[in-house]
Amino acid sequence: DKIGALPGQPNGVDFNHYSGYVTVDSKAGRALFYYFAESPNNSSTNPLVLWLNGGPGCSSLIGAMTELGPFRVNNDGETLFRNNFAWNNVANVIFLESPAGVGFSYSNTSSDYQHTGDKSTARDAYTFLINWLERFPQYKTRDFYITGESYAGHYVPQLAYTIFLNNKKANQTLINLKGIAVGNGWIDDHTGYWGQFDYLWTHALNSDETNKGIHTYCHYFNDKDPKECDDFIIKAYNEPGDIDGYNIYAPLCQQDSSSIKTSYDSVNNFDPCSTNYMSSYLNRAEVQTALHAKVSTWDLCSDSIDSWIDSPATVLPIIKNLMTSGLQIWLYSGDVDSVVPITSTRYAIQKLKLPVKAAWRPWSTNDEVGGYVEEYEGLTLVTVRDAGHLVPSYQPARALTMISSFLQGALPPA
Amino acid sequence: DKIGALPGQPNGVDFNHYSGYVTVDSKAGRALFYYFAESPNNSSTNPLVLWLNGGPGCSSLIGAMTELGPFRVNNDGETLFRNNFAWNNVANVIFLESPAGVGFSYSNTSSDYQHTGDKSTARDAYTFLINWLERFPQYKTRDFYITGESYAGHYVPQLAYTIFLNNKKANQTLINLKGIAVGNGWIDDHTGYWGQFDYLWTHALNSDETNKGIHTYCHYFNDKDPKECDDFIIKAYNEPGDIDGYNIYAPLCQQDSSSIKTSYDSVNNFDPCSTNYMSSYLNRAEVQTALHAKVSTWDLCSDSIDSWIDSPATVLPIIKNLMTSGLQIWLYSGDVDSVVPITSTRYAIQKLKLPVKAAWRPWSTNDEVGGYVEEYEGLTLVTVRDAGHLVPSYQPARALTMISSFLQGALPPA
Repeated sequence: DKIGALPGQPNGVDFNHYSGYVTVDSKAGRALFYYFAESPNNSSTNPLVLWLNGGPGCSSLIGAMTELGPFRVNNDGETLFRNNFAWNNVANVIFLESPAGVGFSYSNTSSDYQHTGDKSTARDAYTFLINWLERFPQYKTRDFYITGESYAGHYVPQLAYTIFLNNKKANQTLINLKGIAVGNGWIDDHTGYWGQFDYLWTHALNSDETNKGIHTYCHYFNDKDPKECDDFIIKAYNEPGDIDGYNIYAPLCQQDSSSIKTSYDSVNNFDPCSTNYMSSYLNRAEVQTALHAKVSTWDLCSDSIDSWIDSPATVLPIIKNLMTSGLQIWLYSGDVDSVVPITSTRYAIQKLKLPVKAAWRPWSTNDEVGGYVEEYEGLTLVTVRDAGHLVPSYQPARALTMISSFLQGALPPA
Repeated sequence: DKIGALPGQPNGVDFNHYSGYVTVDSKAGRALFYYFAESPNNSSTNPLVLWLNGGPGCSSLIGAMTELGPFRVNNDGETLFRNNFAWNNVANVIFLESPAGVGFSYSNTSSDYQHTGDKSTARDAYTFLINWLERFPQYKTRDFYITGESYAGHYVPQLAYTIFLNNKKANQTLINLKGIAVGNGWIDDHTGYWGQFDYLWTHALNSDETNKGIHTYCHYFNDKDPKECDDFIIKAYNEPGDIDGYNIYAPLCQQDSSSIKTSYDSVNNFDPCSTNYMSSYLNRAEVQTALHAKVSTWDLCSDSIDSWIDSPATVLPIIKNLMTSGLQIWLYSGDVDSVVPITSTRYAIQKLKLPVKAAWRPWSTNDEVGGYVEEYEGLTLVTVRDAGHLVPSYQPARALTMISSFLQGALPPA
């Protein structure tokens, strides 16, 4: 699975990277694609980290090529530049395309795509890990962490709980899971929606009138609410107009000449068109060959998965269970995301009614406030200032400081 | 008063500018300093606009040299570059240093500085205008607008009302006031404080615990509140840590070498050290001479005014009175300011209980959402997206679009 060189990669690549398929169901012909970037230094002692993007049904190569991976794609769609704030500086990072049907992951049994849901996703990801560790046995006892964002608010706790249960059943540490970190995670429908609408209003993206309508007519955010609630929800989502809800202050990707003139090619300048470059890159035949991927059309998010058969209204009970197991649990949040905003995460934590262990305080990177941290009994909230939904895209240095602290089992530096 | 050339000004200055003193009390020896930038085009038909910074006691040259004026100061503190989004593109703009004791404005009667307040400030500014129009009689009948920000939320309505009363008393249009535009204005203490604390909490700058404390113990934001309220207010102000409260996502001015290397010299890149450059520039002897200013130490905000003797808890009654006079009244607000946040402005408007005339909608500049607008009967709210307290510093293009619409008597473009 070792990658010789990625097409257009910069000089001086000083770490090993691998990619390929791990079969999770040989009868069905179901295989998951991964990209694995080892650390340039201390690879043999650094922890092992799994990264999962959300959706459901979006590719974790988004994380690899626009967020925390070692490379990002230049605006030519053909060449790569180095991300100096990549998380493989401090960990060996697996990016898993999950479930089958996402990115390069596939099933030869097309009916699989009609039976995909949270449960099957967790099951397959677990099987992937067990099989992957057979291929990379030096990582079997390594400290292991699961990270991810958005709908991975479901994936991450569910996979962690699957590992926990299987370790327990086997009465041995099959996978040495130490902690989870979920970014702007969708973890509870009710607080998720309240957080969205409150965020939109308090960030001056919704009118007072619409906010009043939501509060008058919406209570459950399901079909128990009157029709008026639906109308105000539509209003609330429309009122912000044509902005990037994933970062309410970011520029839009303008496909005209003026924006192409702009040179970004540095992780310090967020480029709103970066997913386009990645898409061009991953659809080049030579790139797919170098990645050991099946020649196919690569999409950001899956078109092939028709329905999602199970998605619990809340994963807070799972998180509560994980808390009793002594896992390190972080919920982090970029604070300028309106899709799964910081308010949603805070409201969800409020539901858990946890005692405060260390009071709210700023943390810092490069003499700037990187965000805020509050430690509760069993769970830690970390915000990343001026970061949108894809935290490491917008604030790479802050995100690396944050995850480094997490992996060290420490709060981010004051 | 005509300025030959400002030291270090760029080539191609295509408008007339003036500066100097207008005596407002000859017995006391009280004189106010102004800088006046005419429009490069249509100067003889473009409206006349007065700009006032807040404080109380801060210089309107902040507006001239870091916000909406024709020039900004380079990081050498000696040379100027052109602001292509200057408001004198669409208006003839007077920047007034007010009251006496601020910037280059002075009084020869030092006790004046102990008797300064809202009333004397409005009175002197009115006298300034009447006398200034004698010096520039071609502007006597020109459409006139008053703009300003922050504590100018007091200055602007009070001066407008003074003009209104004097026109009425004289039974003629002494000053042809057409409208006022107040940016991130402090207009009502009670909603001002509520807006601040709600903004800090909803923008993840305050803990849930502190927000709960404020809501439990604070009701009036004066000495009627219990001591616990004061404690939570102190907590609320401390919890954000070392960030720029005037733009919660902006970088800080780092005086070390790394930031000096950065070249900003464009209004499109906000430079957090710009007030330092301006201060260096305005304290150069040759600059003071070119400006016809008394040779003196220039400060951003006044050290000489010892006390502020009157500041009503609200100017909403004045705004209500002005609404009956048919003036165009805009409250605009940069939405990433935590000092006089958009929430404060919205809460103040809610107090007026005005019918909605045109529903909340986005407005745009350069194919991006510039902010949002909601028109009420008699008053219009405009937000400027991703702008801090000093709106034209952070978002010069959006600010120019906004003020151009205002001066045309139209809502900003959809």
